[in-house]
Amino acid sequence: MVMNIKTYMQDIGLKAKKTSYDLAKASSAKKNQFLSDLANRLSKNESEIIKKNQQDLEDAKKRGLDAAFIDRLTLSKKTIESMVTGLLQIASLNDLIGEISNIKQMSSGIQVGQMRVPLGVIGMIYESRPNVTIDAAGLAIKSGNSIILRGGSESLASNSFLARLIEESLIVAGLPKECVQVINTKDREAVTELIQMNNFVDVIIPRGGKSLIKMITEKARIPVIKHLDGNCHIYVDAYADIENALSIVDNSKTQRLGTCNTLESLVVSRSIASNFLPKIKEIFDAKNIEIRGCANTIKVIPDITKASESDYYEEYLAPTISCIIVETINEAIAHINKYSSGHTESIISNNHGNAMQFLREIDSSSVMINASTRFADGFEYGLGAEIGISTDKFHARGPVGLEGLTSMKYIVLGTGQIRG
Amino acid sequence: MVMNIKTYMQDIGLKAKKTSYDLAKASSAKKNQFLSDLANRLSKNESEIIKKNQQDLEDAKKRGLDAAFIDRLTLSKKTIESMVTGLLQIASLNDLIGEISNIKQMSSGIQVGQMRVPLGVIGMIYESRPNVTIDAAGLAIKSGNSIILRGGSESLASNSFLARLIEESLIVAGLPKECVQVINTKDREAVTELIQMNNFVDVIIPRGGKSLIKMITEKARIPVIKHLDGNCHIYVDAYADIENALSIVDNSKTQRLGTCNTLESLVVSRSIASNFLPKIKEIFDAKNIEIRGCANTIKVIPDITKASESDYYEEYLAPTISCIIVETINEAIAHINKYSSGHTESIISNNHGNAMQFLREIDSSSVMINASTRFADGFEYGLGAEIGISTDKFHARGPVGLEGLTSMKYIVLGTGQIRG
Repeated sequence: MVMNIKTYMQDIGLKAKKTSYDLAKASSAKKNQFLSDLANRLSKNESEIIKKNQQDLEDAKKRGLDAAFIDRLTLSKKTIESMVTGLLQIASLNDLIGEISNIKQMSSGIQVGQMRVPLGVIGMIYESRPNVTIDAAGLAIKSGNSIILRGGSESLASNSFLARLIEESLIVAGLPKECVQVINTKDREAVTELIQMNNFVDVIIPRGGKSLIKMITEKARIPVIKHLDGNCHIYVDAYADIENALSIVDNSKTQRLGTCNTLESLVVSRSIASNFLPKIKEIFDAKNIEIRGCANTIKVIPDITKASESDYYEEYLAPTISCIIVETINEAIAHINKYSSGHTESIISNNHGNAMQFLREIDSSSVMINASTRFADGFEYGLGAEIGISTDKFHARGPVGLEGLTSMKYIVLGTGQIRG
Repeated sequence: MVMNIKTYMQDIGLKAKKTSYDLAKASSAKKNQFLSDLANRLSKNESEIIKKNQQDLEDAKKRGLDAAFIDRLTLSKKTIESMVTGLLQIASLNDLIGEISNIKQMSSGIQVGQMRVPLGVIGMIYESRPNVTIDAAGLAIKSGNSIILRGGSESLASNSFLARLIEESLIVAGLPKECVQVINTKDREAVTELIQMNNFVDVIIPRGGKSLIKMITEKARIPVIKHLDGNCHIYVDAYADIENALSIVDNSKTQRLGTCNTLESLVVSRSIASNFLPKIKEIFDAKNIEIRGCANTIKVIPDITKASESDYYEEYLAPTISCIIVETINEAIAHINKYSSGHTESIISNNHGNAMQFLREIDSSSVMINASTRFADGFEYGLGAEIGISTDKFHARGPVGLEGLTSMKYIVLGTGQIRG
């Protein structure tokens, strides 16, 4: 069986690599035709998609999977509409492939610059959400990359049907149908093979729980763009505008509790604590958000739980927030760089020096001044769509859109130059 | 022993990580002071450096290491001078750290852009050449990264002395001395530990033979910027200027036989073969370069060896070149994308369409029109210096200078915005 899976995956890999060369030189018109045809096809097949998704949902319910899981697995009229909007948005973005930049004249007489090119083949591994099948295929094709999709076994019926629609649209646009391939075995060996086929696959993008990402990081022989926790912080500086601080902290924590850019930890300057903390506590109390604070926090707002060391490392994704009082901005920055997961942090301050120091010295993928951490996503950043949010520093950091799926090769324009 | 090495390496890693935060915010003036002080110090200690290097050379000779190895290990007056020039060049480059770019106004009211930041900690693993110790330390400090250096055991005396000079210059410049640390054990376990400390090290850069790179790729738990073979090609198109073709092919192959940007394989359009091949053969014959050709090549220049399939995969680094005749540019591109190692390829052509097609469709880190493959290096590309040439597509491709040692974080400038 293992040998069969290996052969099956190697065959998929070879086809993906071969067609990636055709896709790399495909015209923008063809790629956009694919995107708009697929958008149409999704709309037309709405009821059929929902029917296939029902099969997956029934299976999941039989297996007793929890409500949050069922929620992520569900395709509704609304999620189909948002897939359609996403595809049309990707179609409207500039084609980055072939873009030439930074051309400089050298003293040797050659001109040196860079050309943007696709990475080649993307291996995407994700759990439950079948809409990722469409988002990822759309971003991959627009950026000129073949893609191999490995969705969760619990969404096989939905994904297989979506894959059929994708294939039809590829054919209509005159693109090779092997540009997007869906792995249709539940065998986990397929994932192991996928993340080790470095002769065929150029990047692995996992979207899923910590155990999936840990396994992939350990076993992959291919670069991984990974998305870990979002233990996001806001530092309320001594020079914060109190009204701004209250509305931004409230929005960052309570607009949605379960997203990766949700606020999880509050760092407050001692000089503003007695003014700010009672007011934010009132807001949080009204929304049943529990505050876990340091000893000094408890002195200001006694009616809260004491935070333990581990609270400061926690991504709660729940109605809980940790809080610490600091003396200086240096202390705030050191605390955040120690406990943060490097996703998103924001400072509330009207002091220019402090704001700029925070911007420079915080080591996270998004660093903000006077704005809600909830803004950290590809759509809000104008990328049009995102294939994930990278908490790595290498290659792509923060929300990853089309550009993160490309690479730059050097180009040299000469007129007969040789090296002396 | 293994436990001791682990403790030793973890201690080095922790120090490197800690000081990386100080270095990230160090002023350009301090970093440049380090570079110019080290340049001075190298000049002043020239005879002492050569004396220490003699110890390594004597050991190497006793162990019977070959001439090429001895050559790479040798530090002469000239190599010391070139280290000095390199450091002063790095000092003269713009400081990229903190550079803000791509600021855009979003409809939500926030402004989104990117800031260039260091990667953090570099792990550099290299063989024999002790000058890498200086080049790598210079590039690391200028780009705001701490670096851990693991040179070859055969150059320990040279490297330890150079490390002492580096430490003195760090102290003079007021930078923490743990920004540059040299591993001073010959134990190979230290390398294994270094490439797996992903809590402390952000990127591994190996420079050495294939077996070293293979081992690192397999065992690393950290992103690797790797430099594999340079099986470089020139395609002499039907529309080539013959004089250009002859001088560029000659220069690319014979200026230096043993570098990674040396030409290893010649692809010739059939329509120009009977004109071009006899002339290049005459040049190559005079320089004792052996041509191994396909059956069609032999029809034009009979007095050569037949190439086998494996010849086309070969990075000879020797007075040998493979040759194939093709019918079309598509065939040329397909041949090169199949056999090349993705380092550097050049087309000789005065046909605009063919030249641009080659530029777009060749999947290599450097693609050239009418220029010698020998130009593919950081100095010729205006990067000032290079820490290596990446044959990967991920993060950095081609010659890697300061920019390849940095990352971009998103920055958001708000005035109180919350997400609706």
